[in-house]
Amino acid sequence: ESRAPQPYALGEVPGPLDREQLRLLDQWWRAANYLSVGQIYLMADPLLREPLRPEHVKPRLLGHFGTVPGLNLVYAHVNRLIRERDLEAVFVAGPGHGGPGPNACAWLEGTYTELYSHITRDEEGMRELFRQFSFPGGVPSHCAPETPGSFHEGGELGYALLHAYGAVLDNPDLVAVAVVGDGEAETGPLATSWHCGKFVNPARDGAVLPVLHLNEYKIANPTLLARIPEEELLTLLRGYGYAPRVVAGSDPAAVHQATARAFDECLDEIRAIQAAARAGGAAPERRPWPMVVLRTPKGWTCPPVVDGQQVEGTFRAHQVPLPGARGDDGHRRVLEEWMRSYRPEELFDEQGRPVQELLELNPVGTRRMSASPHANGNVVRDLRLPDWRDYTVEVDPAHRGALLHEATRVLGTWLRDVTRLNPDNFLTFAPDELASNRLQDILEVTGRSWQAEVGEFDVGLDRLGRTVEVLSEHVCQGLLEGYTLTGRHGLFTCYEAFIHIVDAMFNQHAKWLQASAAVEWRHPVPSLNYLLSSHVWRQDHNGFTHQDPGFLDVVLNKDPAVVRIYLPPDANTLLSTYDHCLRSRHYVNVVVAGKQPQQDWLTAEEAALHCARGAGIWDWAGTEGGPGTLPDVVLACAGDVPTLETLAAASILREELPDLAVRVVNVVDLMRLLPETEHPHGLPDREFDTLFTEDRPVVFAFHGYPWLVHRLTYRRRNHAQLHVRGFKEKGTTTTPFDMVMLNDLDRYHLVIDVVDRVPSLGPRAAALRQRMVDARLRARTWTREHGEDAPEVTGWSWPGDAR
Amino acid sequence: ESRAPQPYALGEVPGPLDREQLRLLDQWWRAANYLSVGQIYLMADPLLREPLRPEHVKPRLLGHFGTVPGLNLVYAHVNRLIRERDLEAVFVAGPGHGGPGPNACAWLEGTYTELYSHITRDEEGMRELFRQFSFPGGVPSHCAPETPGSFHEGGELGYALLHAYGAVLDNPDLVAVAVVGDGEAETGPLATSWHCGKFVNPARDGAVLPVLHLNEYKIANPTLLARIPEEELLTLLRGYGYAPRVVAGSDPAAVHQATARAFDECLDEIRAIQAAARAGGAAPERRPWPMVVLRTPKGWTCPPVVDGQQVEGTFRAHQVPLPGARGDDGHRRVLEEWMRSYRPEELFDEQGRPVQELLELNPVGTRRMSASPHANGNVVRDLRLPDWRDYTVEVDPAHRGALLHEATRVLGTWLRDVTRLNPDNFLTFAPDELASNRLQDILEVTGRSWQAEVGEFDVGLDRLGRTVEVLSEHVCQGLLEGYTLTGRHGLFTCYEAFIHIVDAMFNQHAKWLQASAAVEWRHPVPSLNYLLSSHVWRQDHNGFTHQDPGFLDVVLNKDPAVVRIYLPPDANTLLSTYDHCLRSRHYVNVVVAGKQPQQDWLTAEEAALHCARGAGIWDWAGTEGGPGTLPDVVLACAGDVPTLETLAAASILREELPDLAVRVVNVVDLMRLLPETEHPHGLPDREFDTLFTEDRPVVFAFHGYPWLVHRLTYRRRNHAQLHVRGFKEKGTTTTPFDMVMLNDLDRYHLVIDVVDRVPSLGPRAAALRQRMVDARLRARTWTREHGEDAPEVTGWSWPGDAR
Ligand SMILES: Cc1ncc(C[n+]2csc(CCOP(=O)(O)OP(=O)(O)O)c2C)c(N)n1
Ligand SMILES: Cc1ncc(C[n+]2csc(CCOP(=O)(O)OP(=O)(O)O)c2C)c(N)n1
Ligand SMILES: [Mg+2]
Ligand SMILES: [Mg+2]
Repeated sequence: ESRAPQPYALGEVPGPLDREQLRLLDQWWRAANYLSVGQIYLMADPLLREPLRPEHVKPRLLGHFGTVPGLNLVYAHVNRLIRERDLEAVFVAGPGHGGPGPNACAWLEGTYTELYSHITRDEEGMRELFRQFSFPGGVPSHCAPETPGSFHEGGELGYALLHAYGAVLDNPDLVAVAVVGDGEAETGPLATSWHCGKFVNPARDGAVLPVLHLNEYKIANPTLLARIPEEELLTLLRGYGYAPRVVAGSDPAAVHQATARAFDECLDEIRAIQAAARAGGAAPERRPWPMVVLRTPKGWTCPPVVDGQQVEGTFRAHQVPLPGARGDDGHRRVLEEWMRSYRPEELFDEQGRPVQELLELNPVGTRRMSASPHANGNVVRDLRLPDWRDYTVEVDPAHRGALLHEATRVLGTWLRDVTRLNPDNFLTFAPDELASNRLQDILEVTGRSWQAEVGEFDVGLDRLGRTVEVLSEHVCQGLLEGYTLTGRHGLFTCYEAFIHIVDAMFNQHAKWLQASAAVEWRHPVPSLNYLLSSHVWRQDHNGFTHQDPGFLDVVLNKDPAVVRIYLPPDANTLLSTYDHCLRSRHYVNVVVAGKQPQQDWLTAEEAALHCARGAGIWDWAGTEGGPGTLPDVVLACAGDVPTLETLAAASILREELPDLAVRVVNVVDLMRLLPETEHPHGLPDREFDTLFTEDRPVVFAFHGYPWLVHRLTYRRRNHAQLHVRGFKEKGTTTTPFDMVMLNDLDRYHLVIDVVDRVPSLGPRAAALRQRMVDARLRARTWTREHGEDAPEVTGWSWPGDAR
Repeated sequence: ESRAPQPYALGEVPGPLDREQLRLLDQWWRAANYLSVGQIYLMADPLLREPLRPEHVKPRLLGHFGTVPGLNLVYAHVNRLIRERDLEAVFVAGPGHGGPGPNACAWLEGTYTELYSHITRDEEGMRELFRQFSFPGGVPSHCAPETPGSFHEGGELGYALLHAYGAVLDNPDLVAVAVVGDGEAETGPLATSWHCGKFVNPARDGAVLPVLHLNEYKIANPTLLARIPEEELLTLLRGYGYAPRVVAGSDPAAVHQATARAFDECLDEIRAIQAAARAGGAAPERRPWPMVVLRTPKGWTCPPVVDGQQVEGTFRAHQVPLPGARGDDGHRRVLEEWMRSYRPEELFDEQGRPVQELLELNPVGTRRMSASPHANGNVVRDLRLPDWRDYTVEVDPAHRGALLHEATRVLGTWLRDVTRLNPDNFLTFAPDELASNRLQDILEVTGRSWQAEVGEFDVGLDRLGRTVEVLSEHVCQGLLEGYTLTGRHGLFTCYEAFIHIVDAMFNQHAKWLQASAAVEWRHPVPSLNYLLSSHVWRQDHNGFTHQDPGFLDVVLNKDPAVVRIYLPPDANTLLSTYDHCLRSRHYVNVVVAGKQPQQDWLTAEEAALHCARGAGIWDWAGTEGGPGTLPDVVLACAGDVPTLETLAAASILREELPDLAVRVVNVVDLMRLLPETEHPHGLPDREFDTLFTEDRPVVFAFHGYPWLVHRLTYRRRNHAQLHVRGFKEKGTTTTPFDMVMLNDLDRYHLVIDVVDRVPSLGPRAAALRQRMVDARLRARTWTREHGEDAPEVTGWSWPGDAR
């Protein structure tokens, strides 16, 4: 047995809405629900002009209805706030699988038709709106980039609040209404992101209005938060720093009135907090942010019972309540009754257009959440960037490597001024590692954003701080995503190993960038920039847990159009690289750079040229003959420590085998290694062959896992001659040189590799090879005795150019 | 100016400890602190027999003192509980960077010497204990596998509670004391893991005693939880389901008394909750679990001021309070005074042995937390496994593929009985995806573990449930880690794409397995088993966000000794594979298998042989000539959907090009592709060449990113002839066949690949090639019109064997 829902009448419930307002708001909600059900089921007969026949129903019923009525309810009620208060709002659907909801709302608001002219706001367009949903060649089932007004897909759950909070930073007039699924709320990222209220300055930033959608279920289970006493839930939310208001029920009129009241109170409270903060004078005490707990049935208004099982108000409403609607006459009849229960005749006119009184409920122009320029990527302002050349370190080409600098520290001086010059358009995020990664100079011009209490010995906390430090890589990533997706710029600095914590978030962001690039009406947004430091080779205070360069492998699986990886070998190249990154749009830029004092190799001018090339010969380091000759071996390197070891190896070779023609190639832009057919930065084969030769052995010292270089180069002509050294997952707490030795990336082993690979050497260089083996053992033994690297290693310096 | 701490006297503070107990407990704590400082600084003169000279101090001062006094305090007080109550406890140091603390405690308890005979419990051993810490060739700075009693390294922060909760499941007598850093508490995984109390059944499971170590700082910043009003913090913890007790202060005597009181109360409460639950009768109401908030200064007892800056009680105490101790006479003097402030003369006798009254405070034998068999991997019991052959599906070799099964569903019937047969030794974890991934048959014999309330329409919740469902991949992973690290068995089933959420946790676990395998006294623990379903090719209800097979790439970066990847092509091979996984030890097993109805190809017997081989020829599918002949082309495949497409392509080729000699090779065990030098499962070159030929084109249809196969095979002789199809990051919500077409993995494209690659074809097969191009377009067009795959695709069936 299956039962269809019956049309409901709105009872007389007192509240902020008068009868007429209540009627209209409910009508808008019904329209959105009708259009949502239509998207899930129908490919024809959108207005039910004829009784539903199998061919009107899609053969594959895909989608998620359960969350939709809640999303639509919130959307409709926010629209009332927008109209009454001229509010500037964006909508974040945490359960983005409720895609039909926001699609429906955007169609009602007219945005859908403005952006997709074939989806007209009439019967024909409605049919197309329905048909295209989750249909091959149509639009995805989630709040994807194709969805007007969405900047949050909600496919992988957990990031709704983070995106919302990121959006309102530096957006004082914006309110981000974030619907959080009660299932989603169980995820780690969501659980900690409640704390983000403590990084919102009510004077400078906008506000987030979280709506915890307590529909009590996820896919197949109840949610934890729905199965603790309400008082325990409210206690939890209060502990997170909120003043929750509960809206609960299943009677539409009562819920409308309660929602309207709660939303009014929340908005009043937000405005009061902001007014107090903006009044001037001493900053007021932090107050709890308002929020709403919305306890309504999952799949509300859908068939209560299907095939004898309760569906409405249970987990069974999660996806498609009537899975047999095409083939099963009973299911189809219930579907039709269900749709009719929304009384479409009151919602749409003869032509299938929303009736006039519905249209009048829509906000106007860019006040429509579906048309928000923040959400749709239309408010990007350029950064003001100081000339990076003014921050470079002096390098005397006659004494390369004579000076040591902490590369990230040098970058920090430039970032300090980027921060200063862009006081409302640039933020830096770090999981408590800003200073550890040596970017502390930023703190000369700003503090750390902090709205909580300040202790006697706390340093650099600042209500208006323009760096956000919180020990959650998820929060850093999510806030930066929200900030850049709404058009602003920023940087996330993280220990290299722990960036894996946000692998999944990176994946989702890259997918969003890729998919949104194909949506014509969306504009490119600022790139998401990583600065990974405290990397695998120099995690001196820590051990194996902190040694993992594998994020590069994850990044390289994503669409080449949106990912970039840079491994600058010294301070000046890092500056030049980062200048490039902050100017770029719609990429994920990954930059790995050390924080320890290391040799400066290139002058500013050389750095600019080298970074523009992305990969090039360091002729001063090699011993090649003149034009027309070929080197005997190529020493290639990518990354700061591998570059050091390679240059040290080159200096040994020059000393020991003066006749050997060595070419030294440094790679900054890792994508240069890919074929040009695979990445926009890929070197053409001819150029690659020129640089790396067609047949000479190449000993490649690489920052990351060695097989990654093979994965990039396996189609190159000289691939069989390529020998890569890198991190082989051998690590512990030890000295820097012991680390490279553990992984055979040290200078001595690179020399051994040359001896073993250059045909003219081998037995002819046996003595040298043996000396290298001995040098390794000596170096190892020294560390065991003295606890630090041998002077012959640490004292090495570049002997001056070969020519 | 720098100031050393002064020796303190214990005031008269009332509390549960009498004067003598207080004196002794404090003495033990001072001993642990002394030994911790010694580890960070000294390589000689451990008992300060002479004034410290530079050569006594390590050249590289590495380590983290800030968290240590808190860890040692908790350890000492738990020891009291153990002695007084004969408690069985394990210790989890969330801030595992406090490694010197647990090392010191283990040495005091004698365990260190039992496990490392050269680290004797006397002056010489103390010197070695100090010297080896963070020293090349010594032990890491964290609570690594080398640390006795540790099963939680705490390098990457966030998982302390998860490991503790995992450890106590099915361990009714165990109490896991988990110190949670207040910085760590900001991470997402930690934030949500507080809820795990709701999965602990006080009758069946042990208990976790969380100690939130509110030392107010992380690396450079205060913590959020320390900078909200205490009442707000307590509200939060109550909302998480705890009854927190606050211990705050910096006067040792007062803190000792308060800690003792709080611990006593917590233990009493734990025992009361457990007694009520174990009394029989109706299960009592869920009660809040007790916990402690420990608010003590960071770096407590270290020099208060160094170089004019406050250190004790601030973030500056995080790492090494006196960084100049070797070179700077002032720092070194303060270091010596600091160490003397612990009054070593009261702690150690002339030989450097802990004085007798200290030794008497140690628990005995395996009651010592440093010697806990749970923590040290010594309590593994085998699983009872039903014979997987009894669960296989019938395959008639004359009609292969005639029957369709949901592979994971079939596996579920076997897992049901595994669950039944191992009622206290096997658990399944899922982020609300157990049924979605078709393992619901497990629910026939058990329910979902649930201690919270139960709603009218909730299904299958069970206080004694042996599946844990929570919408947090982090929680699933962390609990399973804790469960297996303490010797039990389990399985984590997850959507393939979202397993990236735990990339970082997987990395850390693999590193733990690798490093612990090198620790002789540790025994292998059960493997951590993944079942990834709802994979990239069949995410029908969702779109691009749910399509990501890249976890395999992450896994392959880890030590080959501990990782395994399987891609069973059908139900029987999945059964055989999983039987193998559940018998294995000390691996991470990744198994990817579909949940949609798909053809059964192999009989049980064939499946057993095929899985044992890991890769093999399906001769019934190919058209090779007899012995002595070579195929013209090899069609290789790995994964269920690629196997289907490959067989469909093979059937087209057989029909269209009956003279073409085709070999079909299926790969179940991905590691077979690696050289034998790179992985224990790697095929010897000779075998690989035999299987894939030395020179014939190989068209490889792969489940994941295609370049992964190249990364595995680039050293193989025939690599240049290898053409891989796989997921190229093209996806959306569409039909299954449209998905494979989008990525050129479809049968028609595989045929095109053969035409393009086999020298004898090309222009000679132009008509076939064109038909394939047309078939693709036809198939695509059909989906656009009908919303489902064309009958010519879905209706395909295996035409019967070639020979
Ligand atoms: C991180 C993550 N894990 C698992 C899923 C699979 N999934 C899709 S919807 C869903 C349930 C969501 O429940 P809830 O957040 O309460 O949303 P609603 O009830 O509003 O649908 C799950 C587990 C997912 N999308 N993301
Ligand atoms: C996930 C993660 N991010 C960053 C770090 C770097 N890190 C090491 S210690 C630390 C501070 C830890 O603070 P807390 O948890 O309060 O520990 P305690 O104060 O006891 O040292 C940080 C951020 C880490 N280890 N793990
Ligand atoms: Mg829900
Ligand atoms: Mg702390």
